[in-house]
Amino acid sequence: MSADLSAGFAPSQATLTGENADIYFVRTCDILQAEQLNPVVSMEVFCRYPAVLAGMVEIRSLLEQVLPPESEVWGLAEGAVIRPREVVLRITAPYQTFALYETAYLGILAHETGWATAAGEVARAAAPTPVLSFGARHVHPDVSARMEYAAMVGGCSGCATPEGARLAGVQASGTLPHALVLCMGDTIAAVKAFDRYMPADVRRIALVDTFKDEAEESLRVAAALGDKLWGVRLDTPSERGRVTAELVLEVRARLDMAGYQYVHIVVSGGITPERIAYFKSAEAPIDAYGVGSYIAGARPIDFTADIKEIEGKPIAKRGRIPGITQNPALKRWW
Amino acid sequence: MSADLSAGFAPSQATLTGENADIYFVRTCDILQAEQLNPVVSMEVFCRYPAVLAGMVEIRSLLEQVLPPESEVWGLAEGAVIRPREVVLRITAPYQTFALYETAYLGILAHETGWATAAGEVARAAAPTPVLSFGARHVHPDVSARMEYAAMVGGCSGCATPEGARLAGVQASGTLPHALVLCMGDTIAAVKAFDRYMPADVRRIALVDTFKDEAEESLRVAAALGDKLWGVRLDTPSERGRVTAELVLEVRARLDMAGYQYVHIVVSGGITPERIAYFKSAEAPIDAYGVGSYIAGARPIDFTADIKEIEGKPIAKRGRIPGITQNPALKRWW
Amino acid sequence: MSADLSAGFAPSQATLTGENADIYFVRTCDILQAEQLNPVVSMEVFCRYPAVLAGMVEIRSLLEQVLPPESEVWGLAEGAVIRPREVVLRITAPYQTFALYETAYLGILAHETGWATAAGEVARAAAPTPVLSFGARHVHPDVSARMEYAAMVGGCSGCATPEGARLAGVQASGTLPHALVLCMGDTIAAVKAFDRYMPADVRRIALVDTFKDEAEESLRVAAALGDKLWGVRLDTPSERGRVTAELVLEVRARLDMAGYQYVHIVVSGGITPERIAYFKSAEAPIDAYGVGSYIAGARPIDFTADIKEIEGKPIAKRGRIPGITQNPALKRWW
Amino acid sequence: MSADLSAGFAPSQATLTGENADIYFVRTCDILQAEQLNPVVSMEVFCRYPAVLAGMVEIRSLLEQVLPPESEVWGLAEGAVIRPREVVLRITAPYQTFALYETAYLGILAHETGWATAAGEVARAAAPTPVLSFGARHVHPDVSARMEYAAMVGGCSGCATPEGARLAGVQASGTLPHALVLCMGDTIAAVKAFDRYMPADVRRIALVDTFKDEAEESLRVAAALGDKLWGVRLDTPSERGRVTAELVLEVRARLDMAGYQYVHIVVSGGITPERIAYFKSAEAPIDAYGVGSYIAGARPIDFTADIKEIEGKPIAKRGRIPGITQNPALKRWW
Amino acid sequence: MSADLSAGFAPSQATLTGENADIYFVRTCDILQAEQLNPVVSMEVFCRYPAVLAGMVEIRSLLEQVLPPESEVWGLAEGAVIRPREVVLRITAPYQTFALYETAYLGILAHETGWATAAGEVARAAAPTPVLSFGARHVHPDVSARMEYAAMVGGCSGCATPEGARLAGVQASGTLPHALVLCMGDTIAAVKAFDRYMPADVRRIALVDTFKDEAEESLRVAAALGDKLWGVRLDTPSERGRVTAELVLEVRARLDMAGYQYVHIVVSGGITPERIAYFKSAEAPIDAYGVGSYIAGARPIDFTADIKEIEGKPIAKRGRIPGITQNPALKRWW
Amino acid sequence: MSADLSAGFAPSQATLTGENADIYFVRTCDILQAEQLNPVVSMEVFCRYPAVLAGMVEIRSLLEQVLPPESEVWGLAEGAVIRPREVVLRITAPYQTFALYETAYLGILAHETGWATAAGEVARAAAPTPVLSFGARHVHPDVSARMEYAAMVGGCSGCATPEGARLAGVQASGTLPHALVLCMGDTIAAVKAFDRYMPADVRRIALVDTFKDEAEESLRVAAALGDKLWGVRLDTPSERGRVTAELVLEVRARLDMAGYQYVHIVVSGGITPERIAYFKSAEAPIDAYGVGSYIAGARPIDFTADIKEIEGKPIAKRGRIPGITQNPALKRWW
Repeated sequence: MSADLSAGFAPSQATLTGENADIYFVRTCDILQAEQLNPVVSMEVFCRYPAVLAGMVEIRSLLEQVLPPESEVWGLAEGAVIRPREVVLRITAPYQTFALYETAYLGILAHETGWATAAGEVARAAAPTPVLSFGARHVHPDVSARMEYAAMVGGCSGCATPEGARLAGVQASGTLPHALVLCMGDTIAAVKAFDRYMPADVRRIALVDTFKDEAEESLRVAAALGDKLWGVRLDTPSERGRVTAELVLEVRARLDMAGYQYVHIVVSGGITPERIAYFKSAEAPIDAYGVGSYIAGARPIDFTADIKEIEGKPIAKRGRIPGITQNPALKRWW
Repeated sequence: MSADLSAGFAPSQATLTGENADIYFVRTCDILQAEQLNPVVSMEVFCRYPAVLAGMVEIRSLLEQVLPPESEVWGLAEGAVIRPREVVLRITAPYQTFALYETAYLGILAHETGWATAAGEVARAAAPTPVLSFGARHVHPDVSARMEYAAMVGGCSGCATPEGARLAGVQASGTLPHALVLCMGDTIAAVKAFDRYMPADVRRIALVDTFKDEAEESLRVAAALGDKLWGVRLDTPSERGRVTAELVLEVRARLDMAGYQYVHIVVSGGITPERIAYFKSAEAPIDAYGVGSYIAGARPIDFTADIKEIEGKPIAKRGRIPGITQNPALKRWW
Repeated sequence: MSADLSAGFAPSQATLTGENADIYFVRTCDILQAEQLNPVVSMEVFCRYPAVLAGMVEIRSLLEQVLPPESEVWGLAEGAVIRPREVVLRITAPYQTFALYETAYLGILAHETGWATAAGEVARAAAPTPVLSFGARHVHPDVSARMEYAAMVGGCSGCATPEGARLAGVQASGTLPHALVLCMGDTIAAVKAFDRYMPADVRRIALVDTFKDEAEESLRVAAALGDKLWGVRLDTPSERGRVTAELVLEVRARLDMAGYQYVHIVVSGGITPERIAYFKSAEAPIDAYGVGSYIAGARPIDFTADIKEIEGKPIAKRGRIPGITQNPALKRWW
Repeated sequence: MSADLSAGFAPSQATLTGENADIYFVRTCDILQAEQLNPVVSMEVFCRYPAVLAGMVEIRSLLEQVLPPESEVWGLAEGAVIRPREVVLRITAPYQTFALYETAYLGILAHETGWATAAGEVARAAAPTPVLSFGARHVHPDVSARMEYAAMVGGCSGCATPEGARLAGVQASGTLPHALVLCMGDTIAAVKAFDRYMPADVRRIALVDTFKDEAEESLRVAAALGDKLWGVRLDTPSERGRVTAELVLEVRARLDMAGYQYVHIVVSGGITPERIAYFKSAEAPIDAYGVGSYIAGARPIDFTADIKEIEGKPIAKRGRIPGITQNPALKRWW
Repeated sequence: MSADLSAGFAPSQATLTGENADIYFVRTCDILQAEQLNPVVSMEVFCRYPAVLAGMVEIRSLLEQVLPPESEVWGLAEGAVIRPREVVLRITAPYQTFALYETAYLGILAHETGWATAAGEVARAAAPTPVLSFGARHVHPDVSARMEYAAMVGGCSGCATPEGARLAGVQASGTLPHALVLCMGDTIAAVKAFDRYMPADVRRIALVDTFKDEAEESLRVAAALGDKLWGVRLDTPSERGRVTAELVLEVRARLDMAGYQYVHIVVSGGITPERIAYFKSAEAPIDAYGVGSYIAGARPIDFTADIKEIEGKPIAKRGRIPGITQNPALKRWW
Repeated sequence: MSADLSAGFAPSQATLTGENADIYFVRTCDILQAEQLNPVVSMEVFCRYPAVLAGMVEIRSLLEQVLPPESEVWGLAEGAVIRPREVVLRITAPYQTFALYETAYLGILAHETGWATAAGEVARAAAPTPVLSFGARHVHPDVSARMEYAAMVGGCSGCATPEGARLAGVQASGTLPHALVLCMGDTIAAVKAFDRYMPADVRRIALVDTFKDEAEESLRVAAALGDKLWGVRLDTPSERGRVTAELVLEVRARLDMAGYQYVHIVVSGGITPERIAYFKSAEAPIDAYGVGSYIAGARPIDFTADIKEIEGKPIAKRGRIPGITQNPALKRWW
């Protein structure tokens, strides 16, 4: 991924003004200002689970814009695999300068780390077979690009939205939707039209379950596109029993028998680490997985921010250990 | 909630341009345009689970902006309790005019319906005790206001961010953070400062677990603020065994014995329907619940969009039943 | 069923000679003869589970042939629903005259009652939808007709082998095998040939999963046979996810939309009471079930024979209660 | 087992005439004949589970009688341990010559393989202690000899019916029934009579639970028969808590203390692999197991027959892979 | 039970001197004395579970001996069914006068309430069939009489040790031990000797599993003692499969058939509420149960003592609610 | 432990007179005397579970007092780890001399072995961290010293009652009770008074949860006592979530930060092997555990006594193996 990633991560106006912050932080700033209190505070951020960390690039982009020069920030690398309770971020700065952003940076970490961690699970299960993130439709459009970016951080090899792909520094990838087939009235007509207008570097991957049996349709599209066909995508809906390992084996066998050994098979629809393990144990010859809701629907992983020093003195609320926590993996940002 | 809700739901640029759409919809529009095909299509949207529907106001705001006058749209009401496979939205329009927005409207429904449904579960469990949404820190800041709005649709009585509260037509509510207590060095000093500067209509709710035992601290803040104290908030962290029903009963008894019968008790920290049932069965005298990750971390509920008619002719992909699905609960939007 | 059922139940030579009896009964007869002992014995037969009793007709046919006139036999009716430990058969006769047949009559009861009981479970689950027994291929051909007969006793509405149907007093029923479709090279050709040569009273039921998607093929065979088509049979193999309720609903909808409301739907493939409950709860419009291994593979239900009186004196082995057991439901055979 | 095993496996008339075949095979033959179609077909047979294969000898006996000389048949050996989906039989012949026998050969394999596999499980669990098949009473007498034969294929060391023993090439074995003891009025009288009349090569094995405690009775029969007693059989019924490991240990100890170290102990009654493991872990000194319903009541293992080539061209129904499946373990029969 | 029960409950020397008290109570008394502190304290005692209360008579006997006249004590009745956290005892007295006895009165309550509660469970399960406590051998002899007394409080109808029976105001009951049978060499000899020397009011109950089968032996002892036999006791050890419902039914039937309808059946050996439910559901005709380890091995039910007032002022440690707890069921002792 | 242990184990009068024996042993003695039968009997004692044996010292003390010189006794060592069914004691003596004590010696073994075995589990789990037995309040005071002694046999490092400690040959240990703190009105006052009056060799261990948060209170007592403070005891009640590993870590950190590295941490309250494993896996720095009800409430482990020889002749009741059982670990007592 390119070095200029932070370009796409500029904070929104609502974040900068605290409109989307918990109101008690707004009030805290008002009170401290009235009291003329602005102590230098060391805040540490951690979560309680092992995870693949994501969101650090976006947080850095936010903090660079709001913190004063004399502040000091330490953080882990994007994509770091973290231990439970490992400190991932430490901010030392006058408290009024960053109190307003706690809701935002915790939320960024929670959501993006949740997605990256789920993507990591799927990617590990599938390796070396690549996994494509297809789940934008499962999250609000204002965060879908972040979700796709986090999926790439976690280990996916491609994603489907232009904005998400740009954040991750890759090209968006996709097949063709059932809607095109339905509008064209026939799978063959649809893939031919796709082939006619799409640039040469866009892979031709045919959906083969719109109207007919998948094995039958695979042979028809292979015959229609010849060696321009990169692959077929099996996406049998749950109403038809989902994709089975036997279906993959059969499609492969029928394609091979008809001379289409070069056609790849992409499988999607409810893919999880368990489903991937099932396909692997059955030796189903799959060339790529498309994964949607397992990643996009992953539960956010809650992070906590704790004050551990005030004006250089160790302190902590009850239940936490006062003072800075050592973590040699932290790098100083500035 | 006010009638002008949609004001805050304007679609982002990325949504309007399709930057956050799955790329195959972008390509489909290109192909259909090249083929000069733009059939009138009826698209139906449904999900597979019972749920509390949210996102319809935001979707209407989007569709009003993009669909041509001759289109026809039917939808269910925001907050409707829906059955599995019930059609919640039907769009009939030339396909090129809305193909690009399928990722967005499915994502809006998935995320907001997920949050509203979880909020409904908590609110039903707690009724008649009110539930406040405190979970902004668990989601990305670009959707935190949507999450809070959806929590209100699902049944919450209040939420914590100014923007979320504005979408829901209420005032934001909150207590005070541990950070203020730590900065002031003492709970009593912190609640007195809060009381000094906050407008009279902001409730004084004291955090009582920062430095000392909750029961001891409750009595101290009650003594300090007198009848201006609206309530105390118990938020014992998991490191200290979380809030128990016995703790609530004890704090209530000690407050009552000292003459502070009017002080309310707010409980937060890992609240779920099961935890609420536990407090109820133990008759713990709780006046309000603060709920965070149960709502904010709710899994999105996936929605599916299916073409069911093209140019008035029933059609469907394999696995679906062709033709319009009757649903008398749908209202025509235009 | 006709009154002359026992015609088909003549015992085999091996049964009459004791060739297939446990050898210790052969030896017991030899010893008693040598000892010139032949006491009149009352033997009672029961099992330990609730069940649908089958095999009584065959056993009566055997005992009529071997017992002397002075013997006395009491039995329950074929198809009786029995309680655990209920006596189903009592034989009082000189012991040498029937010791040799204990293995046979217990085995007849075990196997046939097992099949009838399983058929009863499926038939109760499916009622009022009829169930056809299709499981001959799961049992040895020398008992397949007995299995089909027992399935009819248990509640099936039809069965597939000529001999089984004759025992049950009905016509055999069936569809057409995948093999015919494969030999003819095409489903349409196969159903047309079937229609050409089969008598008018044989129902035309088309298999629709040999080469293509079931919904697509159903419409093709309906178009080919017109109103001569009685029904289609859905038998999706486990490799393709088995038949789902949604598939049935879709095939029904597509047939109806095309004007083939009169075409019935038969479902087979791994049908069990649980699967039937699933189809019912999903309101899948099924007109008949074909059931194979659930009935044919049912575990035999073990029966036990106990001597309870010898020469009119109550006796029993340890663990059993001596003397005749009262059961008013027993009818005297002779 | 002798080389001439197939002698006892001649197919019945009902099998040869198709009376016990699924009627759709009868109809298929009629249709193909009317159409003058008789393609050379390659049919492959497999099952979906690991198993001990039995029934091949009987199937060979059937096919030898019905197939024309130009046909080609490949099969695995009787008793082969097979993998899931391994092809066990391949018939290449004009389809009309063998279509009628599919129900029969599948049923033979299902039933016999089910029995042999269960016997294999028990025998493996018990090894090196021998297992005797005592389950004829749990199956219909027309298949009890096949069951016993299959149990021997699977690993039993003896069986109880003369016909089953003859198929397996051994002598039938057995003890003496409770009925003989009851008729003689006393266990000692019964074993003495048994001893008086039975040939010297028949083992004297006494049942010791008819009237008295097993340990007491064991000592009495040992005293009565002296060194002619080969063993005692413990068969405590479930009403008395079944045989326990402690009972076996106690009987052994009491026999040894009284000088009957040579008397063997046979245990029966609900024996399963789990029960055998329990006896083993308790080091119960058992010399042989008698097993009935675990083997005789084993679920048939369903086999499937698929056409994979027609006139030399690979073909298959949907869900199967077209063309001959390689299996080097197959031997050519002719 | 007689009014003079407390006679047998005099505290031991070790209890009165505090030798068996937790040493920190000894030290507390020393310190308070040195500090010349002896405040009047109200101590309340409760447990966290529903239970049958036992031990109050013994505690009253202790407190009467140690407390000064000006003290005030309230207590629940022996045998009361108590709710979780219900106060069962309240002592108001100068603290030095009773601090030393907290270990003792908590231990008395814990152990005796545990036994009484378990006895209550068994007695309720068995009602109206009586339950006899036979468990002295499972507890230390210095508390076996207390255990038997508590079992009677909980609902047993008889117990086996002279001292326990005296505490409970009944006659001890028992059968005869296996040892007597073994010493006499024969069950019949043993029961005859028992009959010869025991007073007429001692029930003749024969053990019938020492040497022979229970059913056989029951008939033998009935024949030997005639109508002097009150009953037989079935106590089959676990090595022989324990007593089963079928065994009881069979013994009953064989006794009845032989004219011994008047002989009762007592069952013992691992009796629990679940086992009693099993016998009931099988309608086993049992006249009394002998219960040992279920009662004697019951877990003590921990009680807690809390100071709730000092010199009339409400107080409590953290986690408890200060001040006297109302409980109208408490009666004032003095 | 000292060699003179048996001094404290003298049997009670009730044990010597048989008052607390099962009455059938009393009657057996009467009958045998009347019959003038007093055979020399070998009695063996065993249990069915692996355990840590305790009670042998007390039994020896009893048997020494009652058995005649010509008797022979073999026993295992106190604290031996025994296998299921291992013989732990064998008495050979005229039966009338010891029949009366069977209830007593079985009860001693049951109760003491139960406690020792539970103590062994806790001690093994905690090793090398020491475990103190604090459970006297959970058992009747007449056995609390035996319980503490048995806990020491099982592996505890200390116990709390003077009598129990004397039996085990150690000094009693304890902290100070909540009652002292409540009477003194303040934790600091209480620990100071404790320090003032207690001998120097009594460890100063402060309870820190009476009025305030544990971490806060720990720092206060450390400041008050300085280096005379040996440790603090965390005993958070279940109403406050019990002690958690995080609390221990936090108290340790706060003590260390304040310079009190030498202060030990003792943890009590519901300690079990599972809880200890949890603390270990979280690396909670605990210096000692106080364990109460896990040991004191342990279920007695039932022992059985069997006659195995009478006058030198092997005998046994049904279900047991006649004759002496070899066990080389047995030592001859006399």
